[in-house]
Amino acid sequence: MQINPARLIADLRALAGYGQHQTGVNRVAFSAVDIAAREWLCRQLAGLGMSATLDTVGNVYGRMNGVDKAVLIGSHSDTVPFGGWLDGAMGVIYGLEIARCVAEAGNMPLGIDVVSFQDEEGTYRALLGSRVFCGEDVSADIAAAKNAEGVALKTVMSAAGLAGKPSPKLDPKRHVAYLEGHIEQGPRLEHAKLQIGVVTAIVGLKTFRVVFKGEANHAGTTPMAMRHDAGAAALSFGAGLGDVVARHGNAETVWNVGKAHFEPGAPNVVPHTAELTVQFRDAAQPVLDALARAVLAAAEAAALRHRVTVEVTGLLDTPPAAMHPTLIDLFGKAAHDLGASTMMLPSGAGHDAMVVARYIPSGMVFVPSIGGRSHHVAENTDERDIVRGAEVMLRTVEMLMAQGGAL
Amino acid sequence: MQINPARLIADLRALAGYGQHQTGVNRVAFSAVDIAAREWLCRQLAGLGMSATLDTVGNVYGRMNGVDKAVLIGSHSDTVPFGGWLDGAMGVIYGLEIARCVAEAGNMPLGIDVVSFQDEEGTYRALLGSRVFCGEDVSADIAAAKNAEGVALKTVMSAAGLAGKPSPKLDPKRHVAYLEGHIEQGPRLEHAKLQIGVVTAIVGLKTFRVVFKGEANHAGTTPMAMRHDAGAAALSFGAGLGDVVARHGNAETVWNVGKAHFEPGAPNVVPHTAELTVQFRDAAQPVLDALARAVLAAAEAAALRHRVTVEVTGLLDTPPAAMHPTLIDLFGKAAHDLGASTMMLPSGAGHDAMVVARYIPSGMVFVPSIGGRSHHVAENTDERDIVRGAEVMLRTVEMLMAQGGAL
Repeated sequence: MQINPARLIADLRALAGYGQHQTGVNRVAFSAVDIAAREWLCRQLAGLGMSATLDTVGNVYGRMNGVDKAVLIGSHSDTVPFGGWLDGAMGVIYGLEIARCVAEAGNMPLGIDVVSFQDEEGTYRALLGSRVFCGEDVSADIAAAKNAEGVALKTVMSAAGLAGKPSPKLDPKRHVAYLEGHIEQGPRLEHAKLQIGVVTAIVGLKTFRVVFKGEANHAGTTPMAMRHDAGAAALSFGAGLGDVVARHGNAETVWNVGKAHFEPGAPNVVPHTAELTVQFRDAAQPVLDALARAVLAAAEAAALRHRVTVEVTGLLDTPPAAMHPTLIDLFGKAAHDLGASTMMLPSGAGHDAMVVARYIPSGMVFVPSIGGRSHHVAENTDERDIVRGAEVMLRTVEMLMAQGGAL
Repeated sequence: MQINPARLIADLRALAGYGQHQTGVNRVAFSAVDIAAREWLCRQLAGLGMSATLDTVGNVYGRMNGVDKAVLIGSHSDTVPFGGWLDGAMGVIYGLEIARCVAEAGNMPLGIDVVSFQDEEGTYRALLGSRVFCGEDVSADIAAAKNAEGVALKTVMSAAGLAGKPSPKLDPKRHVAYLEGHIEQGPRLEHAKLQIGVVTAIVGLKTFRVVFKGEANHAGTTPMAMRHDAGAAALSFGAGLGDVVARHGNAETVWNVGKAHFEPGAPNVVPHTAELTVQFRDAAQPVLDALARAVLAAAEAAALRHRVTVEVTGLLDTPPAAMHPTLIDLFGKAAHDLGASTMMLPSGAGHDAMVVARYIPSGMVFVPSIGGRSHHVAENTDERDIVRGAEVMLRTVEMLMAQGGAL
């Protein structure tokens, strides 16, 4: 089987026409243009003779008929507001193109099922569609979720006419593996001048809100030794995080202080409150747990040094998701067979594969992001790289077929 | 001559009745209640046979008749919004009480002139009244000044009916010295269990806005070594300021990072912009200048380390104002004569005396602030301390009289 490059790119461009904005796409989950794009995908899949459904949350699931076992291929077709044309969409179109190849070839030992998950980007609730497809209970999330403007998820779900739709589910007896292609969304492949990233794991992450509380005082009349300076505690804590990660993390650990805010925020008032957010990511749960303990200890030490108190609140706690070792191996072999240069790397961003990997063997392949950019209209990837990623995935599917779907 | 404690406290309470709010006072400059309080003060001064005027900006100036030379005593009677009953008011009532004593005694070698300056607190423009009284050109400030709600100073000045008022001025031939009593607004006297603070200098201050600019990036997919993290630069710079001050400041130097703000401010985005304000105060201009150079160098070094840029903008630059050495000496002797315990200290906050000291010998005396608090309705001072401050000032006036006003 052979990827048809012109057809692959044409499908991608057709999908990008839904919600096109400058060089990017504005197609947030449950918007009219998002639903229209999903209906377009259903029509493409139905055109291949597949059973295609839009489900109760807007997932598209295309099921190839006449086979007992199938490789599930896909990603998501919703975007962040004013995002790029490839984030999610590329992995969905890889599924469509490989389904086209298999449908043309006919009579294969494994079918291809194609999925486009809903709201991976979290306009209402991140990874909603993959969690629903995997049978997780999201009823509380659906009841509570609102977008940034305060619009309830329930409202947009009924406006989209999704009530009463079917609700197909992941079937571990049928689905031998889940494969997701994606742009890297980072600079590592481009920086290393490599063509294919084989994802070893999707990193877990922990996010904490760290709030120091002291006492507001006149910054001229209060001697330094008598202050309870929440801001100074936060600066000292934040500046020391690099050392904390160096001691308790590893070479791949990444961390970020994304938010800092002092109250009352006047140049001549010692801050009574200082808030930071601390986020760190790693592929190993023990590393995440050790870092959480070390960050808490560092916050408490900084508070003690500055005679203030500190409260550390967990905001997010996502476990890492290992990709299946056989799929890692097959992706690597496929790339080698095709003469593509590769890097093994963890994914620093979340993906639907982190949900699906809880239930069936899952693997991801990355292609380079130009300038490492994503979530922006300037997001792009060289078309040869886009095609190469699809070729590596098709070759992987062929190897899976050769071993009858056994992993 | 003797301070009349009951009369002093009664006058203070009467003034606090203008704009009373809970245990404090809300009497911002140019408000109706501020003007009414100033008219009350004029009546008290006129009742002593003094010529009392409300001037074009709302300063009250009471001039004792029949003398060529006088000690000028006062402070300001405007407050911050919902402030305390003593900040400014106490120094004004010291002037009134000492004028009462001198008027009662009659035929003294020096008169007492009393002043209540307008808008020391900067509702429209800090120190406006003392600058006008000292003959400084404030026309540009008056044209530009607005309060926090955007109301123009010119508007409230005409609403207050001040146009066409007289404009008496400081007269270095007449005014042999300016004496200002004030609450400490800090914890040092209370902490040391001392009764009288003799102010050596009003510290100067410099305030800078420090803005680091880097590049927003995904906090999961961007390797640490490839980031341009404005937030990390700001944390590193801010946490290092203590060392900078330790090297270039002295034991009395105080500093503050009052504001910190990162953009975009999301836990999972590397900040592209991080803003801090840095303020430091010292009584010595060379120390302030050395610190300014060192802070700039530290900001540039932090930017370089984190591969970002930095812009440092001066927001405030106020020179220190030394109190007159003879007045420092006389206040100390007066306190000693009265058996009051003293501390020599710089004022960490600004006062009208820092303007007047540019033109005539000026001195300040502090009384303890309970809990170091000010600019709050809870601001307070023990009545015995209030009276003691007036007694020290009256004794100082007597010593000035004994030397015929020569310093």
